[in-house]
Amino acid sequence: MTYSHTLTLKTHYPWTSSPLVSSAPMRLIAASPLAAAVSRAGGLGFLGIGTDTSTFLSLLNEAIATFQASPIPNTPGDILPVGVGFICWGANLSMALSVMQSSPLKPAAAWLFAPRETKDLVAWTEEIRKASSGKTKIWVQVGTVTMALDVAKRCKPDVLVIQGSDAGGHGLAQSSSIITLLPECADALAREQFGDIPLIATGGIVDGRGLAAALMLGASGVCLGTRFLASPEAAISEGYRNAVIQTKDGGVNTARTTVYDQLRGTVGWPETYNGRGVLNQSFRDHESGMSEEENKKLYVDATKLGDQGWGSNGRMTTYAGTGVGLIQSVMPAADIVKEVLTESRGVLARAASKL
Amino acid sequence: MTYSHTLTLKTHYPWTSSPLVSSAPMRLIAASPLAAAVSRAGGLGFLGIGTDTSTFLSLLNEAIATFQASPIPNTPGDILPVGVGFICWGANLSMALSVMQSSPLKPAAAWLFAPRETKDLVAWTEEIRKASSGKTKIWVQVGTVTMALDVAKRCKPDVLVIQGSDAGGHGLAQSSSIITLLPECADALAREQFGDIPLIATGGIVDGRGLAAALMLGASGVCLGTRFLASPEAAISEGYRNAVIQTKDGGVNTARTTVYDQLRGTVGWPETYNGRGVLNQSFRDHESGMSEEENKKLYVDATKLGDQGWGSNGRMTTYAGTGVGLIQSVMPAADIVKEVLTESRGVLARAASKL
Repeated sequence: MTYSHTLTLKTHYPWTSSPLVSSAPMRLIAASPLAAAVSRAGGLGFLGIGTDTSTFLSLLNEAIATFQASPIPNTPGDILPVGVGFICWGANLSMALSVMQSSPLKPAAAWLFAPRETKDLVAWTEEIRKASSGKTKIWVQVGTVTMALDVAKRCKPDVLVIQGSDAGGHGLAQSSSIITLLPECADALAREQFGDIPLIATGGIVDGRGLAAALMLGASGVCLGTRFLASPEAAISEGYRNAVIQTKDGGVNTARTTVYDQLRGTVGWPETYNGRGVLNQSFRDHESGMSEEENKKLYVDATKLGDQGWGSNGRMTTYAGTGVGLIQSVMPAADIVKEVLTESRGVLARAASKL
Repeated sequence: MTYSHTLTLKTHYPWTSSPLVSSAPMRLIAASPLAAAVSRAGGLGFLGIGTDTSTFLSLLNEAIATFQASPIPNTPGDILPVGVGFICWGANLSMALSVMQSSPLKPAAAWLFAPRETKDLVAWTEEIRKASSGKTKIWVQVGTVTMALDVAKRCKPDVLVIQGSDAGGHGLAQSSSIITLLPECADALAREQFGDIPLIATGGIVDGRGLAAALMLGASGVCLGTRFLASPEAAISEGYRNAVIQTKDGGVNTARTTVYDQLRGTVGWPETYNGRGVLNQSFRDHESGMSEEENKKLYVDATKLGDQGWGSNGRMTTYAGTGVGLIQSVMPAADIVKEVLTESRGVLARAASKL
């Protein structure tokens, strides 16, 4: 975190606190209630458009209505103070652009993730900048040093989101955690004259300790996904939320796998990706060699169980990161943002007092 | 890191700086030159006895001779200012005890790792305490919250080493990184009244940024393994050391696997363990389905190539953590200890100045 990074983020998102706390653009989960609550608390919330660009207009309009009814002070008039996240291999760029062009307010940021190839990101970056007259800042999520450098060179993004292996939901099947990925990216980018791009750490950050650690590693801010699952604003069932609260020892009770994609039919991800979720009966049956057909049948049956379908003995998918074990209770998203910031300052001040 | 943890460590190892920087008991690699250099620089070096307890006496005597020739000021007269590390599933407790009992100086710490069952740790802990009249403090390495609690209850160790998934060499096949594992262990231990046990973070810590991050997460110190491979004191070939320096993007160019154990015949590890090493031709051939027999034959041939046998296109094993990509050059072990401490203070002070 350098002063220039802090200044860049504060200039682009003037309503936000430093360091920046953002919420992940979780597909189907992060809609206007979550994104707006995070931004209103001084963070930057993201809407999860994901692969289905046909949801973009309604998600955007809902957020616009919220902020038109009650704007955040310090927001430039033509900026919507939330970002929008696209899963590039599945999302439709021209549909995204037409929504963006006709929107009265431009999203503060577009988060681009999981393209088939880096060159697709170049098109997304350039076209979104054009469609928003540069008002929508470009965030690109990467999981390796090579990709960070490649994206920096080809897209000149406004932010790089550095995702480590602890992250919940989708990410690279093979990567390090942010403990080494973040500083290695920071060093490599600085060596290649890209040190001015702010880095946002994600993957395993749940509280103020994680935020403070990310700052030590060179991040200018963080993105939390799993933690916000335990907020009332996350659009998930009680079963999912309960599973998040109940899961402990997150390193052994979650795993990276493609089995949940198979069961849910969310296929099409590039081969290098999978998703981290809480171990459940579907996972164990898969590991024991049950056929995909049989496992899927049991999964479909479980969808009829309502909230009982989740949890370690259930079959419904609980995407969550290894930090799930740190989450003890449900808390409003705004309180999460504030608690994470306050705790990080306390942790830092206590450590500094011993220097 | 609390004041009482710092005090405990400073009382047990009075020659050390705070926060504590230690070097891993890497089997075959961490002998007296490395361990002594780390301790002389204000850290705590460990000798890697590993699974072969018959090496204990000579490794210990070499270290004793070093410190008898040139003691560290502030070391209690009957304490050897280095620790010793045992891989419990393979090491022989009674042999370890007879060496320990007859030794004129007792190692400052015994690091216990990878037992077949936790109850074996109880025997190791109690017997070593008895054999050393409590002078040898007990460090137990764990990789899950469950094991941290179990060990705390049954062994009451002096230190818990919390190993995350980024670590090089052996560790749990399935775990989180220290980003979530450390705070989840800290919280769970505190809830069960074991908050007085200092936690040492390991797995992906390479420099002062990693140390500072570990402190934010609740550690009182750190252990570095991979970083010390790039010191002249590590007992490895130039080929190994060069591979460490050359490997970049540590999250994708290392992997957790059992293939290197198969090739080297280092078998007997409990099923839940594997080791992280740099991807090489043996790994790729294994992934492409080459038989173990054929791969082993090629490995044995490669052992005759000398330093050329290492590296991405080689077949010799380069155990290393994901932090390998952060290592740019070879540096004396003492300078590593000092640089890590100095850098961590700078990182912390800079962040604190922005509060």
